[in-house]
Amino acid sequence: MPSGPVDDTLLVRVSATGPAAAQGTPRERGPDPRSVRTRAAVVEAATTLFLRHGYLGTSVEDIAALAAVSKRTVYNNFQDKERLFTEIVIGVTATAERFADHLLGALSDAPDVPAALGELARRHLAAITAPQVVRLRRLVVSEASRFPDLAREYHRRAPGRVLAALADAFAALHERGELAAPDPVRAAEHFSFLVLGAALDRAMFDPESEPPAAAELERVADDAVRVFLAAYR
Amino acid sequence: MPSGPVDDTLLVRVSATGPAAAQGTPRERGPDPRSVRTRAAVVEAATTLFLRHGYLGTSVEDIAALAAVSKRTVYNNFQDKERLFTEIVIGVTATAERFADHLLGALSDAPDVPAALGELARRHLAAITAPQVVRLRRLVVSEASRFPDLAREYHRRAPGRVLAALADAFAALHERGELAAPDPVRAAEHFSFLVLGAALDRAMFDPESEPPAAAELERVADDAVRVFLAAYR
Repeated sequence: MPSGPVDDTLLVRVSATGPAAAQGTPRERGPDPRSVRTRAAVVEAATTLFLRHGYLGTSVEDIAALAAVSKRTVYNNFQDKERLFTEIVIGVTATAERFADHLLGALSDAPDVPAALGELARRHLAAITAPQVVRLRRLVVSEASRFPDLAREYHRRAPGRVLAALADAFAALHERGELAAPDPVRAAEHFSFLVLGAALDRAMFDPESEPPAAAELERVADDAVRVFLAAYR
Repeated sequence: MPSGPVDDTLLVRVSATGPAAAQGTPRERGPDPRSVRTRAAVVEAATTLFLRHGYLGTSVEDIAALAAVSKRTVYNNFQDKERLFTEIVIGVTATAERFADHLLGALSDAPDVPAALGELARRHLAAITAPQVVRLRRLVVSEASRFPDLAREYHRRAPGRVLAALADAFAALHERGELAAPDPVRAAEHFSFLVLGAALDRAMFDPESEPPAAAELERVADDAVRVFLAAYR
């Protein structure tokens, strides 16, 4: 499991080594470090501006200026603004996939299920209420009318993937007799939104809100697990 | 309680009779019907365009054209685009306030608490997943960076008001010994997101999604109430 909330660095790292960076580079030498740096600078600048001003409010000119490259460099690396936007959003879902994979392994075999659920709830809540993650969710939701396929894809790969991994884990725990979850998909939804629902909803409507403090995060996670276990244990 | 999901008509009706419509009109005669119609046409056109193209993607010119009035009429009635946007968003929260008020009365005195919770869950889910309501939520979330005060105000008056009313009802039911909810605010969050969380999250990311069909809505509501009662009854 990741050791803490997803941060800016991660957002950038994921896309800077995306498919286009590897294209046309001799395999034995790996990608040219200068072109990787340029690409990373463009992704970082674009991420910052998209998250701050939205898709419409950001121009390739602004991105080039913030990345200190020419507009032509942006186009050479990413084709156009739409392609750049898509790569950034999809790139971030890799984080959710890693989180989901770790989650599944750790939970299904946990010797102490209530303790494992508590730990999972705390990590999940911390990861999802990190300001950068909330901003990205807000951005994708904002652009869902313009990019419906991208928004659906993001949902499938990020929250959807976590839900699917949770459902698999709950199915395994049902088999082991640790939980009574004959409908593991519904159980996953219940667990997830008991933990995240209220905090995430507040955060989506308040761009200046701070993520929950450590003590509050503990309380929210513990309360969610208590309710979940009352119904599913 | 309202008899069904919130619809377009309601969105428009609320703002068309807002403060500006009443201004400068002789009280004994009521508002001039023609100016009420004009105002309603502007609100309806603006609501349609904001929901479809967002705040930045909509111009006063577009609004005037769709409402078949002059730009000057728009400005005379609403000052500017920002003011018009704000009035529409705040106007809609009146719906949530009415829903919250009905909810509180009906639930606190319910003779059969599980049945009342089931009924409430179904109505709440139907209301919140109505396409027009999801679109408005998406719009407010989209514009949260540009209008943080408005987004917070919307959250306080709409989902926040419903949560507060639920918490009051759960406190009363705790007093009556019908529920064991020593922390009624948390209980309200749990109930709300057990019912709405997954469906609302999916809808926010998929502008073309249909609201849950009647049978699915029943199942989601029943499952949520079952989990809630296992923990709080």
